[in-house]
Parts: sequence; C-alpha cells; structure tokens
Amino acid sequence: MSLVSLIALLDYASVLVFALTGALVASRAQLDIVGFIFFAALTGIGGGTLRDLLLGQGPVFWVGRPELLLLIAAAAVLVFFTAHLFESRYNLLLWLDALALGVAVPAGVGVAIEAGAGPVVTVAMGVITGTFGGMARDTVANELPLVLKQGELYVTAAFGGALVGAALIGMGSSQGWALVACGLTVFALRAGSMAFGWNLPTYRPRPPRNKG
Amino acid sequence: MSLVSLIALLDYASVLVFALTGALVASRAQLDIVGFIFFAALTGIGGGTLRDLLLGQGPVFWVGRPELLLLIAAAAVLVFFTAHLFESRYNLLLWLDALALGVAVPAGVGVAIEAGAGPVVTVAMGVITGTFGGMARDTVANELPLVLKQGELYVTAAFGGALVGAALIGMGSSQGWALVACGLTVFALRAGSMAFGWNLPTYRPRPPRNKG
Amino acid sequence: MSLVSLIALLDYASVLVFALTGALVASRAQLDIVGFIFFAALTGIGGGTLRDLLLGQGPVFWVGRPELLLLIAAAAVLVFFTAHLFESRYNLLLWLDALALGVAVPAGVGVAIEAGAGPVVTVAMGVITGTFGGMARDTVANELPLVLKQGELYVTAAFGGALVGAALIGMGSSQGWALVACGLTVFALRAGSMAFGWNLPTYRPRPPRNKG
Repeated sequence: MSLVSLIALLDYASVLVFALTGALVASRAQLDIVGFIFFAALTGIGGGTLRDLLLGQGPVFWVGRPELLLLIAAAAVLVFFTAHLFESRYNLLLWLDALALGVAVPAGVGVAIEAGAGPVVTVAMGVITGTFGGMARDTVANELPLVLKQGELYVTAAFGGALVGAALIGMGSSQGWALVACGLTVFALRAGSMAFGWNLPTYRPRPPRNKG
Repeated sequence: MSLVSLIALLDYASVLVFALTGALVASRAQLDIVGFIFFAALTGIGGGTLRDLLLGQGPVFWVGRPELLLLIAAAAVLVFFTAHLFESRYNLLLWLDALALGVAVPAGVGVAIEAGAGPVVTVAMGVITGTFGGMARDTVANELPLVLKQGELYVTAAFGGALVGAALIGMGSSQGWALVACGLTVFALRAGSMAFGWNLPTYRPRPPRNKG
Repeated sequence: MSLVSLIALLDYASVLVFALTGALVASRAQLDIVGFIFFAALTGIGGGTLRDLLLGQGPVFWVGRPELLLLIAAAAVLVFFTAHLFESRYNLLLWLDALALGVAVPAGVGVAIEAGAGPVVTVAMGVITGTFGGMARDTVANELPLVLKQGELYVTAAFGGALVGAALIGMGSSQGWALVACGLTVFALRAGSMAFGWNLPTYRPRPPRNKG
C-alpha cells in the first residue's frame, strides 16, 4: 500500500470512528437525528480540518470528498437506532474515542510529513489532528473535555505516539511503519491508562514555604 | 438582481441580524459597550468566516469590506441603548436568531455554489454558515447553545432549508429562486418549531433488552 | 530595529507570556506535564494563528518557526515545577495575561498593516490577536472567560490600544512608535482597571416604562 493511500485510509477510519463518538454524545444530550449528524460531523472532521487550515492547505480535505460527509451521516443514523442496545454508552464512547485517537494521530503525522513539515511541527499536527475533534465535541456539548481528565493519559498518549512516529522517520524508518508504530503507541498508552490506570504525575499545589 | 448581489445582500442581512443577537447576549451578561461590539462581531461574522476558511477562500469576506465591521458596531450601540425597552430580551433574541438563520443558510449555500462545490458540500456550508456564529456566541457566553435545545428544530431547520436549496438547483431551478426557497424553508421550520412545537423525535434511551 | 523584527519580537514575547498563563491554568486544573504544554500552546499561539488564517496567510506563523513550540514547551515545564512557589497563582495569571495582551495587540496591528489592511480591519486584527488565545484557554478549561468579567476593561483595553495604534499610523507617525504606543495603552488600561477599578459603564437592565 502506498503512503498516500495509507494516510487516506487513516483519515477515513478516524472520521468514521470519531463520528460514532460524536453521535454517542448526541444521544446523551437526547437530540434528534440531525443533531446526531451535526455532532458526528463536528467530531469526525474537526481535527483534520484544523490541521489543513494551519498547514495552509485549503480547501480542507473533505470539501473534495463528499462521500466522507455521507459516511458521517450513515454513522449518525446507525447510532441513533442502536445506541440503546449498549449497557454503558459512556464506556463505549471512551473506547471508541481511544480507537479514533489511535488512527487520527498518525493521519495528522502523515499529512504533515507529506506537506514537508519538520519534526516539531509534525508532532504538533499529530496531536492537533487527534485531539481537536473530541475537544470541540465536548466543549459544544458542555461535557467535561477528555483533555481535562485528571490522572489519565489523553493528550499525553497522542503526544507520545506522535513523538514515536516523528523519531522513527527521523531515524530513517519507512514512513508506513512509522505511522503504524505511532498509532499503536497512542492506542496502547490510552488503553493502558483506562484499563490499568497508567498515568504521569500531575501538578499538585503545595503550600508555599514557611517564611518564619 | 444578479446572483452575486443577492448573495452579498444575504451576507449583509445575516451579519446585521446575528450581530443584534450577539449584542443581546452581551446585554444578558451585562458587559460594557466594547463587550457588546465584541459579541456582535463574533456572532455576526463567525459562520461566514468559517465557511470562507473551509472553502480555502482567504482573506475572509469581511477583510475587504470594512463597512461590515462598522455596521456591526452600529448594531451593538443600538442594542446597548435600547435593549431595556423590550419586555423579554430572550424572546427577542430567539426570533432575531431565527431570522438570521433564515438569511445565513442561503448565503452559505450561494457562496458554496459560486465556489463550485457539489450538492453535499453545499448543504454542509449552508448549515455551517447558519449555525456557527450563534454556537460561538453561546459557547463563549456560557449560555446553553441553541443547537442543544431538546425537542426544537434548529440545526434541523438549517439542514432542511439547505437541502431544499441544493435540490432545487440540482433540478435546474434558477439559483436566485432556490436561495429564496431555501431561506423561507429555514425560517418556516424554525418559527413553526418555536410557535407550534414542531419537532422531530429525539433519542430516548430505552432499557437494554431483558436477557432472561 | 526594523519594523519586521519589532513585529517578530512582539510575536515571540506574546507567545511566551501567553504560554505561561496557559500553563498556570493547567496547574489550576491539576494536569500532567503534557497537559501543561497543551494549554501553553493553545493560549500562546491561538490569537496569532486565527489572525493569520483570517488574513489568508497560510501556513500560519509558527509552522515555519518550530523554535516557538519549543519555547512554549520550556515555559510549560518552568511553570510545572515552580507554580507552587507563588502565593496567589490567580493573581500572577491575571498580571501575566495583562502583559501578554499588551504585546499581542500591537503584534496583531503590525501584521495587519504589513498585510496591507485598512484601519478598521487593522483594529479588528489587533483585538483578535490579543484576546483569542486567552478566550480559547478559558473556554476549554471551563474557567470564566476574562472577556466576560463585568466591570473590568479587557476587550476594551485591547480595542483602545489598537485604536491608538491605527490612529497614529493614519496621522503619519512611524509604525514602530505607533506599535509601542499601542502596547503601552493596552497595558495601562488593563492594569489601571485591575489596580484602580477603571471601567466603562456596563449595561444594566431597567424596568420597561410604565404604560398606565
């Protein structure tokens, strides 16, 4: 598979899975079917859209690919009619979001490399592509953004995977393998955090030193 | 009237009316006159700005038309000095917002068609142009976004009207009439929802099937 | 110093100081080190990024200057390890934010003038560059946005300074001095508001006139 088709595949997969999470948030807000499509689209294309804008690549990726919007609408309809079958929609949401993060970050890394970005900007584009759609979803829906969850790896998982991808490419690895390793790292870190409580130490305010 | 001037007229009208709603939200937050201008601008130009960015049409529409920003400032000053005359500012806000939605959606549809977009992207641009300014207004002001109001047609009204517009153009109608029909559909759906309670069924969680 | 290097210096300074405020907000949310970097970046580059997008200048300013992202990361690490030394992190946040506003507004004014914008758009770009990063920071972190603080000059300080800058340039002043006067005006208005309670009258709803 060529690099360009791998990146396109990652883009499609991340749009689809993030769209499912957006529709699940719409179900928690008890919206109608168009509300489901709206949140599915905001979440599905938010990250990649911002990435394309920042890289100066307009029109953005989905303007020339209308089938992406139809895929999003299909995902929203599916969730509208089946979400009640799941015992814990929030748990489903969290795991789908982890999966989407694991494909969106390498998609962002790949697009940045194709655009000729250096390593630092490549890592930034991976993190932005991975996190922005979910952040828009949670902010508009008034849910606690996953990026703010204390003691969980989220941005950190995206950052770690993007770093692995950029480092492998810098060391001469093939871009395809670097993107796969990037995505697996993101998912492993996020899943390990959810399942086993992996985390980094968080900031804890200590009382100022005694001056007496 | 040529299509280009019809689109420009719709753009002006939607900027003006959305600006009035932004200033009304500023009055609810009891800001000073510059705060009024700020929210009027965020709401008035938010949707069209995002549309232009997504279509890769930078600089955005108001950069070459400074009179739009002066119009917004005038709207903000007007509301600052007269809002107290209205018995229910929230009701006024809702109806102005419906009117703004009814002109912004066809403006978005028209710009997308002029830019050569296909039907799916055209519908998406109509919805984005119509809803994004109000969404930014409500999110920044910490009000419940109108897109989240249960059991009311809001995104759905924008979507229905954009669909009518794109369908008419696809069937060979003149673009001018298609935009007029688009705007009337949006306003009728939104107004009918506010006045008569029109809505679509919303998602309601059902208990999972009994497994016993 | 040439105008271009003055603008670059203002851009660097505003990125650095806004990044410090973003990291302070991350400390209030008790995030991990990557969460600190994330909020530092969102706040540090948010305003200038939106400005570049609106002016149609993609890729945005930091894509070609990766050292800016490294500067942001360094600022985040510094705050992660030293924030507990300050008695009132919120007070420190407010004063750093005022300083950042005072350098970001003239940076926005300068870039707009370099891009050939007229006076109205120049003022708007100054206000947007100054306020958007902090607004994104507060909205994502679920803090009360500083733009909404009643009875304090915030957007008004940015607007006043941008107006002074654009007016001086319009009257034939050197651009360098105009930017310096712009920044000093912003900081003086914001600091005066915090220290001495300077403000503009805010909107206060009055009861509707008696009709009897």
